[in-house]
Amino acid sequence: MKRHIVTQLRSVLIIGIASAAFYYAQAQSVEQDQRMIERIFVQSLSDDSAYDWLRYLTQNIGGRLSGSVQAEQAVAYTYEQLKSLKLDRVEKQPVMVPKWVRGPKEYAYFETEPGKTTNVPVCALGGSIATPGLGIKAEVIEVKGLSGLAELSDEQVKGKIVFFNEPMDPKLIETFSAYGKAGSQRTSGPAAAARKGAVAVIVRSLNLALDDYPHTGVTQYGDLPKKQWIPAAAISTNAAELLSSVLQLNPKTKFYLKQASENRGEVLSHNVIGEIKGSEFPDEIITIGGHLDSWDLGSGAHDDGAGCVQSMGVLALFQQLGYQPKRTIRAVMFMNEENGLKGGMEYAAQAVKKGEKHVMALESDAGGFTPRGFGFTAQDTQWAQIKSWSSLFEPYLIDSFKRGGGGADIGPLAPHYPKMVLAGLKPDSQRYFIHHHAANDTFEHINKRELDLGTAAMASLIYLFDQYGVQP
Amino acid sequence: MKRHIVTQLRSVLIIGIASAAFYYAQAQSVEQDQRMIERIFVQSLSDDSAYDWLRYLTQNIGGRLSGSVQAEQAVAYTYEQLKSLKLDRVEKQPVMVPKWVRGPKEYAYFETEPGKTTNVPVCALGGSIATPGLGIKAEVIEVKGLSGLAELSDEQVKGKIVFFNEPMDPKLIETFSAYGKAGSQRTSGPAAAARKGAVAVIVRSLNLALDDYPHTGVTQYGDLPKKQWIPAAAISTNAAELLSSVLQLNPKTKFYLKQASENRGEVLSHNVIGEIKGSEFPDEIITIGGHLDSWDLGSGAHDDGAGCVQSMGVLALFQQLGYQPKRTIRAVMFMNEENGLKGGMEYAAQAVKKGEKHVMALESDAGGFTPRGFGFTAQDTQWAQIKSWSSLFEPYLIDSFKRGGGGADIGPLAPHYPKMVLAGLKPDSQRYFIHHHAANDTFEHINKRELDLGTAAMASLIYLFDQYGVQP
Repeated sequence: MKRHIVTQLRSVLIIGIASAAFYYAQAQSVEQDQRMIERIFVQSLSDDSAYDWLRYLTQNIGGRLSGSVQAEQAVAYTYEQLKSLKLDRVEKQPVMVPKWVRGPKEYAYFETEPGKTTNVPVCALGGSIATPGLGIKAEVIEVKGLSGLAELSDEQVKGKIVFFNEPMDPKLIETFSAYGKAGSQRTSGPAAAARKGAVAVIVRSLNLALDDYPHTGVTQYGDLPKKQWIPAAAISTNAAELLSSVLQLNPKTKFYLKQASENRGEVLSHNVIGEIKGSEFPDEIITIGGHLDSWDLGSGAHDDGAGCVQSMGVLALFQQLGYQPKRTIRAVMFMNEENGLKGGMEYAAQAVKKGEKHVMALESDAGGFTPRGFGFTAQDTQWAQIKSWSSLFEPYLIDSFKRGGGGADIGPLAPHYPKMVLAGLKPDSQRYFIHHHAANDTFEHINKRELDLGTAAMASLIYLFDQYGVQP
Repeated sequence: MKRHIVTQLRSVLIIGIASAAFYYAQAQSVEQDQRMIERIFVQSLSDDSAYDWLRYLTQNIGGRLSGSVQAEQAVAYTYEQLKSLKLDRVEKQPVMVPKWVRGPKEYAYFETEPGKTTNVPVCALGGSIATPGLGIKAEVIEVKGLSGLAELSDEQVKGKIVFFNEPMDPKLIETFSAYGKAGSQRTSGPAAAARKGAVAVIVRSLNLALDDYPHTGVTQYGDLPKKQWIPAAAISTNAAELLSSVLQLNPKTKFYLKQASENRGEVLSHNVIGEIKGSEFPDEIITIGGHLDSWDLGSGAHDDGAGCVQSMGVLALFQQLGYQPKRTIRAVMFMNEENGLKGGMEYAAQAVKKGEKHVMALESDAGGFTPRGFGFTAQDTQWAQIKSWSSLFEPYLIDSFKRGGGGADIGPLAPHYPKMVLAGLKPDSQRYFIHHHAANDTFEHINKRELDLGTAAMASLIYLFDQYGVQP
């Protein structure tokens, strides 16, 4: 009996010591993580790299549409800048991308009676064909989104210009949800209208504010035979409101559109990749990225110069802080997110071909605004671990960790690596769609601190995944 | 025995029913609150009132320094707008305020050698006296904040222009903390330098960004005899960096400052008050407010036109939604927050004089940016209740509820009502100090959605305090 008690006591003692050691180790590692994350934020907020790279990308290079001279300049520039970081590997990954050109400035007006015209701020949608050289003039039929079009007979649409005028829903707090809802009229509206016999399409800009900027963005003709394709353009939200009022007064109002945009087949471009090799698990790859291409109207500051320089910034921070990751960390500037996603698809294809092991990927493609948290696509067990990290981000007000999320460019990895974690940085979304795909997506609308907080948040998350790995 | 069991059973049943009823009532009220708050946000995001008021205040009236014509125009305008809301009571509350005028544009340069000058963006600090008509030219001694000055002997300072050049600390995530740290060199630096024999003071603008805007703000001579007062001005952050470099190369560099600012005694102005009378507890007063006065360089959009129109907006939302508060809700546009706080002090003095019962006050004076939450000054028991409401704000990403907070204008109520709750709206603070007290605090830097989210957050919080009262 006595011996039994002693044994029991010993067990209790051992368990006690073991637990104490466990809790001590845990507490120590939480403290270590807190300290490392603080170092990351302090360094990021005092460093100019990301902001200076973005200034160059936007002000010295400008809009970087796939296949353009500027896109190739951006490839060369980011490649050189990554080289200067003394990484373990820097690479230009070849990828064929579509080349679409806008041509001379578009021109549009509406005409309430012959000779009485009002000019309208307009831009061709990406991928759209040109109008005939002299333009198209036709009566307008206004609809609210794709469902509005579906209610019309072919007879009602035939020979007309369809005007998609569904506003983004101001009630949705996360503006990306409103973009998702109203966006289909831009991506699929022109093809749908063409099938009903429309001669052209104009779309209300996907912008939550009322202003004079037309917002471009891709439209897809899908499997519509090429000879049925019709030109499609976006008009500013102010113009959309005005045109809608005018149509109520005079349904016979005509709209004139002239544009010379053109699809020019595919050309060679590149993803740009910089890598720090892992010291313990070099075969486990963590990808961070943004897309290097942008629309041509502005200079791609928020969309997505910010995501590129933040991804490069994570590697720069690790180098500056002397942090040697255990796993391989790769920053990827993807090409052609806007009108093809060819960069993301090629990156995934090459990963599979080389038998790489991808465990986690993080994309920043929602603007360079104050970060609020991350969205994650992860298994339940992975999620428990990830969620437990959110408190480490509370001091920085970036602790909104939610399930669901990722990014367009890292998406093509997912089917090949079903157990990998995908994540997207979630910045404050209120201002994003004022600038998105428009001429005012420019450097002066970037706040250095907001950009740097995003870089620091990304680096901190990557640090945690690097330290603790991704549960298989 | 059997009877006992029945009694027991009955008790269990009664308790069960009572608990069920209690939980049902609770669940119902949570659902009711969720619904009401959703209605508030939907209404606010679809309404233009606050944004339109702010456009008028900033673009039609402009900067509204206490005692200026514009400040009086703002009093008249907000009074009329509150009248148009059909409230129960609208009042102009008289208050004497200091009148300080900037005079003609200030002028400054530094001179590395005779005749070799570089112009510097400069503005007089609020309350500062003028230089002599021909200006002041003297050697410069640079110090880091008040502690830097304290290290110098009077001999080192005598006859010189003291250059306070402590930057705001970029490492602090909440930028108001950095403002608090570096701010004392502006408010107290000139008086401290005067005591050591300085002839003038220039202060690095309290701005986290490097740019060319000088930022004004109040300075206080305190009990320094008037004949010892010296002129004080702010220079832009870029100029401060440049001057600091130049002084390292040539410590004999001279600085020239000319300004004609002037204190002109006190004049009559007003707080503007609009009130909805409570239906059940009309004597319990809840105050919401911002300050109507602003510095003169910009047009007081973020500081604090935003807080005024948000406060008016709360009353407008309640009216639009047909919400009849149980308690009396008052929106107050305080006068003279920037250079005297006379409006806040008079409001408190009148409250005490009239024997009013103030239970809660909320101020918005931290910019019209995306709201992140609130700070509260409250007793422990009150805090438990308040904290429990934060989850209602999660869907709107405004759930950072922290202890500590209030506002300058509502502060004077506190000593008289020790049990009242004070709260301050906490918007995202990253961009605020780029605009604060500078010429670029203008309407185009306000985002309508961000402003409206703040109004909705305030209205939702006030709704909860109105429904559940404030624990005594």
